[in-house]
This record gives sequence, C-alpha cells and structure tokens, in this order.
Amino acid sequence: MKPWNYDLDSPIAAIATALVPSALGIVRVSGAGSIQLISACFSRPKALTSALGNTVVYGWIIDQNGKRIDEVMIAVYRSPASFTGEESAEIIGHGGPAVVLAVYRTMLDAGFRSASRGEFALRAFTNGKTDLARAEAIREIIDSRTDTARDHAAERLAGGLSQEIHSIKNMIVTSLAALGVEIEYPEDEDTVKGAFDAQGLARACERIQRMEDAWAAEKLLRDGATVVLAGQTNAGKSSLFNSLLKEERAIVSEIHGTTRDWLESEADFLGIPVRLYDTAGIRQTTDSIEAEGVGRTRSLASQADIILYIIDSVAGITDQDEKFLTETHNPPIIPVWNKVDQKESKPLTKKLSSSLSIVKFFPVSAHTGDGIRELVEEAHAILIGENQQESQMGAGIGGLRGQAPGSERQKKALSTARAFLEHACEAEQAGFPLDAIAQDMEDAISALGEITGETTADDILSAVFSSFCVGK
Amino acid sequence: MKPWNYDLDSPIAAIATALVPSALGIVRVSGAGSIQLISACFSRPKALTSALGNTVVYGWIIDQNGKRIDEVMIAVYRSPASFTGEESAEIIGHGGPAVVLAVYRTMLDAGFRSASRGEFALRAFTNGKTDLARAEAIREIIDSRTDTARDHAAERLAGGLSQEIHSIKNMIVTSLAALGVEIEYPEDEDTVKGAFDAQGLARACERIQRMEDAWAAEKLLRDGATVVLAGQTNAGKSSLFNSLLKEERAIVSEIHGTTRDWLESEADFLGIPVRLYDTAGIRQTTDSIEAEGVGRTRSLASQADIILYIIDSVAGITDQDEKFLTETHNPPIIPVWNKVDQKESKPLTKKLSSSLSIVKFFPVSAHTGDGIRELVEEAHAILIGENQQESQMGAGIGGLRGQAPGSERQKKALSTARAFLEHACEAEQAGFPLDAIAQDMEDAISALGEITGETTADDILSAVFSSFCVGK
Repeated sequence: MKPWNYDLDSPIAAIATALVPSALGIVRVSGAGSIQLISACFSRPKALTSALGNTVVYGWIIDQNGKRIDEVMIAVYRSPASFTGEESAEIIGHGGPAVVLAVYRTMLDAGFRSASRGEFALRAFTNGKTDLARAEAIREIIDSRTDTARDHAAERLAGGLSQEIHSIKNMIVTSLAALGVEIEYPEDEDTVKGAFDAQGLARACERIQRMEDAWAAEKLLRDGATVVLAGQTNAGKSSLFNSLLKEERAIVSEIHGTTRDWLESEADFLGIPVRLYDTAGIRQTTDSIEAEGVGRTRSLASQADIILYIIDSVAGITDQDEKFLTETHNPPIIPVWNKVDQKESKPLTKKLSSSLSIVKFFPVSAHTGDGIRELVEEAHAILIGENQQESQMGAGIGGLRGQAPGSERQKKALSTARAFLEHACEAEQAGFPLDAIAQDMEDAISALGEITGETTADDILSAVFSSFCVGK
Repeated sequence: MKPWNYDLDSPIAAIATALVPSALGIVRVSGAGSIQLISACFSRPKALTSALGNTVVYGWIIDQNGKRIDEVMIAVYRSPASFTGEESAEIIGHGGPAVVLAVYRTMLDAGFRSASRGEFALRAFTNGKTDLARAEAIREIIDSRTDTARDHAAERLAGGLSQEIHSIKNMIVTSLAALGVEIEYPEDEDTVKGAFDAQGLARACERIQRMEDAWAAEKLLRDGATVVLAGQTNAGKSSLFNSLLKEERAIVSEIHGTTRDWLESEADFLGIPVRLYDTAGIRQTTDSIEAEGVGRTRSLASQADIILYIIDSVAGITDQDEKFLTETHNPPIIPVWNKVDQKESKPLTKKLSSSLSIVKFFPVSAHTGDGIRELVEEAHAILIGENQQESQMGAGIGGLRGQAPGSERQKKALSTARAFLEHACEAEQAGFPLDAIAQDMEDAISALGEITGETTADDILSAVFSSFCVGK
C-alpha cells in the first residue's frame, strides 16, 4: 500500500505550529531512528536515547557548531504507541518564528527530511493507527471555524462516521452472505427462502440517504456563508456589524479588509461560520472614490448569500431604500429596521407604501442588542433553506453530528453505494440473475469501504492527504 | 515578593500557540491542583491524576455536557520540576483556532483563571526557577527576527548575561568587604593598606562599559532597520527586492503592504532584521493616484534608515537620477548601478558629471546576484555606523552575544551601576569619608542586582512581565 510519492520509512520533520510569535512552538518528527537523530543535536543525548515512550525530556537543542538554539522539552513516543505508529517526538520550544525555524533547520541538518503535507496522518493511516474517515477528521477539526463545526469534526475523529459505515456495511455483508448460500446451493429450497433481504437493503439505503442529506449542512459548516451589510449612510451599519460580532463569540476578531472600502470579520451565526462585510464608510471619501466604492459594494453584495439592508427607523424609509427593497435581488435581503431604541424611531406600521406592505422588516437596536438574536435566527433559517435541507437542519444543525460525511469525497462514496444498492433491489424485482445482484452489493460494500479507506485507490489517498497542512 | 496584581497561587490557563490553523496547538496550565482540575474534563481521569511528572497521557478533553472537545496528549509536570516550579501541564491538541479555543474555554469552565501576560514566567521567577535577565530572554527569543538575534537571546537565556553580572558584582563585593574592614578597624594600619581597590573598580567599570556599548547593536538586532528601494521605473527595483530577500533567508516571506502603493517584506542583512520596502509600481496606475503614490514614497523614504537608489545602467544616469543623488538626504543613500550583467550596460567610469564624481556606486546584477552581497555588507556597515558602535560590532554583530544587555531596562541599570562606581572612585580621590564611598559601591551592587532581579522593585517586575505574550 505504498506506491505513491512519499518515502514512508525515512525520518521526517515538520513545524507543527504557526510561525507567529507566541509562547510555545512545536517541531514534530517521526520515523525509525528519530530519537537517535535528535540526540546528536541535544544537550543531554543519553537522557533522550534512554527515555521511555510517553515521557518528556528537558534540554537544549544544539546546532552542529555547538551553538545553543533553544531550551526545549521533548515529548518522546516509542513505536507503536504514537500518533503515526512510528518512533516519534514533539520538540516543544519557544514560539518565535526565528527560533522555531532554527530548531527545524537543525533537525534537517541532523538528517530528517521535510515532511510533505499530511504525511504524519498518512503514516498513521498506513500503519493502521486510524482509518481514512478519522484521518480526514483531523483536517476538519483544524479547519473548523465554529464550535458546531468543531463538534461534528470531533465526533468523526472519535469514530462516529466510521462506526455508522461499518454498521451499514455489516447489514449488507449479512444480506450478501445469505445470497451467497442461494447461489452456491440453488437446489436447497429451505435455505434460500427469502435469501434476498429487500427490506434490509432498503433500511441500509435509508441510513445512507440520511447521511447524504446531512452533507449540505456539513458543507455549510465547513465553507460558511457571506453576509453583507448594506444601506444608506448613518443607517447604523457599523454598529450592527459590531453588534453581530458580539452576539456570538467571533473566533477571529476584526480583520481590516485589503482595501479601504469595507471591513470584514468572522462571525458565528448559530454554528454557521459567517464572513460579515460592512460596507460603511463609502461616502466619507471623495466623489470619484465613492463611485468606485459603490461599484465594489454592488459586486460584493451580488456574491453574498444574504444582504442585511439596514434602514434608519428615525429617518424612516427613503425613496432610495424603497427602490432597493422593491427591486429583485439575487441574494435574499433581510430588511433591518434599526435604532428602534430611540424615542424618535418611527413605528413600522405607519407610512409604508403599498409596494412595501409585503416586506417583512426586522426591528432591531444595534445599540441595546434588541432583535439581534431574531435577526441571526432569520439569517440562519435562510442559509439552511438555501441548502434545501430544512428538515435535516431544523433540529439544530445536523442531528447526525459525527455520523454526517465530512467531505465531498465521502458524500460521493455514499451516493455511489446507495446507487448500487438501489440497482440491486431493482434487478432482483426484474428477475436478474443472483450473481449480478450480488455484484451490485459487493460494489456497494466497496464504495462504503472507500470512506474508511479499506478499499481506497492510491490516487484518492494522495488527494486526501495532500490537502492537509504540513505537520499533520 | 508578591504584592503586585497577580494572584500567584491560583491555577491559571493560557493558549500558548498562535490562533492560526496549524497541525498542533497548546493550552498551558499551571498551579497547585492543576492536574486534578483537568482530570474533571478528561476521558481518562485516573491515568492523568496518577501520572508521574514528565510523562505524557493520551485522552480526550470532554466538556461539562459530556461532549468530546479534542483528542489530546497531556504533558504532565510535577512541582518543583516544571518551568514555573508548580504542578503544571501542556495540553497538546489539534491546531485549529476553534478547537484550541474550545479546549481553553473548557479549562476556564473547569476552574482555571485566564493567565495574565507573562504570568507563567513571573511564577518561574518568583519560585526561583529563573532570574530576571533569563526570564526576559524568553520574550527576547520569541520576538527575535533573525538568527543572530535569536542566538544572542538564547545565550542570555542560557545565563550568559547573568553570569557576567554575577562576576562583576563579586568583584565589587570583594572590594567592598576590604573597605568594610577599614571602616570597622580604622586603627589597624596593616590591614587597611590599599583597602580601596581603585584598579579593581576601574576594571569593573570597563566591563560594564563594554556591555553598555553592546546595547546599540542589540537594539538594532531587536528593532531592526528600514530600507527603502527607490529609483525610476524599470531601474529594476522589484528584481532587486526579490534578490535581497533571497540573499538571506527571510523569516516571513513576502507581505503585501496595507496599501497598493508598495510591497514590504522582512529580510536579514547579516543578522540585522530589515523591513524592506519596494516602491515599484507607482507609475503603473493613473496620474492622480501616481501623485499620491509619489508623495507616500517620499514620506516612506524619509523614515527609512537607508535608501537604495537603483539606476538602470543600460539607460544610464538620467537628469532625474542626478538631481536625486546630488540633493542632500536625511537617510543615507546607496546608489546601486543595476543590470551590470547586460551587454549594453554602461561602464561606471564614463559620462559621470563632476557633481557625481564623489558618489560611490555599487555595481550589481539583481538578475545574476553579482554584487548583492557587497551591497548588503555596505548597508550593514552603514546601519552599524549609525549606531556609532563600529568597534563593537566590527567583529560580526556583538562579540558579547549573550553577555550584552537585552533590554533598555538592563542597559539603564548598567549605566546606573557604572555611575556609582565612578563616583566612588572620584570620592575616594577627593578624600571623602569611606562610609560614603562604601554606600556608592553598595548602590552599584544594587543596580546590578536589578538586572538579575535580586533587588528589583515590584513596579519594575510588573512592567517587565506585562510586556510578555500570554502563555509565557
């Protein structure tokens, strides 16, 4: 199982933490002889080489010229009790980019090869320490942008998806075994009665379908949505922007856009990671730049999943607001009736033209926070609706959690498996030979096996692991 | 020694790695009872609570609702064999922002308090695990931007500065002891002969002076320099920019500027971290934006430490080049004679107007790399010269390495100590009472003690540790 581009025996090293100044940083190594290699550039070689697995050794990394590089703790893992199943180590040092790089370079000088993307996880997989679905869940948990996404990935990492796949596979295997008896001993009337378990296969199809249906929600959790705040100057876009960031704990705090035309930040809409754009400030610049800015805002809005159109309820609806709200828009619009906390705020019932009478406004106060929760819930409902998985996601995102597929690849394999099973059922009803039906069932089992990596081609493995970050 | 704002007994937790997607992330905890607290949210509580110091325990972090948060390895440290001297642990999990935050929040829910900046290092200091100069070196090693800066910080972390301070202090203490005998027994002629060790104190002053002199270089290593590439369109600024980044290993690869007017990146000029600005591309936009861009370039150039003015040696020197080179400039300018690899490149000796005859050009080829090294050496020499430490830095930056001070605070304490010693010598020559002279020497010892933290006021400690990043 080793014919792809990696050399799966040699000791490898990778920087496993971000190269950003922080308290601690980790250089990770794996492969037979790793501990011996590190000991050649370590202040306490004997303590290291004699260390038991799952122990931590204190000392200094020393380069080939005898210069001290960093004071570190080395977590030692002995084969097979490690993530990769190989002898390996985590060198925990200080978290400055220069110092982490220096430790890493010292390891390369000592004889380690730079690890490829996902190579640690690939080794864990090839050494039987994890199945493919669980290995993929590592990348999913690292990339997750909200707590809900992380929760689903953690359940897959814990084996939720793999167990469900095994359980469904076992149902099919049992059915297939009964069919095998019928094929082997067609004359034995007693044995073969009802050998084809149509009901069992239908149940298997249902369970697979349930997982397939959950993918749209998982994809939304993974890719997130784009929400753009639009509206006239002084409608309170920036206040609402900040209010929405506060509503849910943002993972990354305010990020300034690469241009001066908008702000963007990451918010959490009841589990859905949302990239939130505030187009405020366009009018604060000169006319020519404004024209450009307005053009950009329109282009940004057209790519959004939802537009929150903010109206100043004190000023009331302007002609421009009315024009925007009654136009047809590709991304759905939620009209937001802002500043309802203010005394001069106009009530929603009054002065609405007939063309606006069907528009549902959301009264909020960015200042007091009133109505923000309802606004987020509405946006969440629209995003779920867009994914046409209302029933699936109604009970909080993804009732399946870790049983839902975590990647397109897994979703495709599920669809393939179900197609084979459905074909088997049709073939049986059409009176096809049992051999052909058995082949369909075997193909379904094989497709399910691709998810956990039991029957996965090398090119799929390459694609899976090369999408990992280095050090995993 | 505990009257500042921290509560130095309670268990604390901090995220110790950057919140950027990466393979691994660490949440760090410290304080009596830490292991017990983690065990309440760990899948294998008994394995954890019974773990010996310096061992690693595998398991899952589980939140208060029983939900799995992340699959982790926990490095367990038992008091006093830990960085802080307290019972502590490093929870090594997956490196996604959401998952690291979730583990951290689980720890806060379990009863840990959020650690303040530098609180782990402060605890290490108050528990006698490190002196103040070594604690400061932790921050220095994290913040170091080049390998040379890291090397000096590592030597200070290893105790280079502290040992030199101790050695000097011991010289003064010995002199003071001799003086003490003279003060106690003034009638004992034999004992007191030459009790004041003027030569010894002069030697101490010299050693302190040597360390003070090294500060300018250390400051340059810490703060770095700004180098701006200027010159006319097509002079080859961008090629030189890339060539300079390649010359030395850049810690951070190309960063796009916050505006569209220039590129900036971090380069390593023989150990000096250099922020390199390429002002190319200004002329590629419309006229009005160009005007603004040129204004910005001038403002950028005026704040630079060095301007590399690039001339296209094929086109030769234009009037505009000549005007720029013969004007007086505040940051020094290095005129770069680029594209010397090209056949049509004009030789430097020809056609130079008399006003340019004193200008020293640096012939380079950004394309072949010829002359780049010499250019970097010239820039390095100018930066060192600007810091007026030519002799000090001549033999490679900072012959003192880890004996040089690493902060303004340390430099100031050195100056104070030397002032007291010089005053003592003057006072002795002026025939002042020995008591007064002894007091000067004691004050010098006390000033030196501030560097290692033996005689450091709480407000200084607060200032030192609050400049750390969280998790250290």
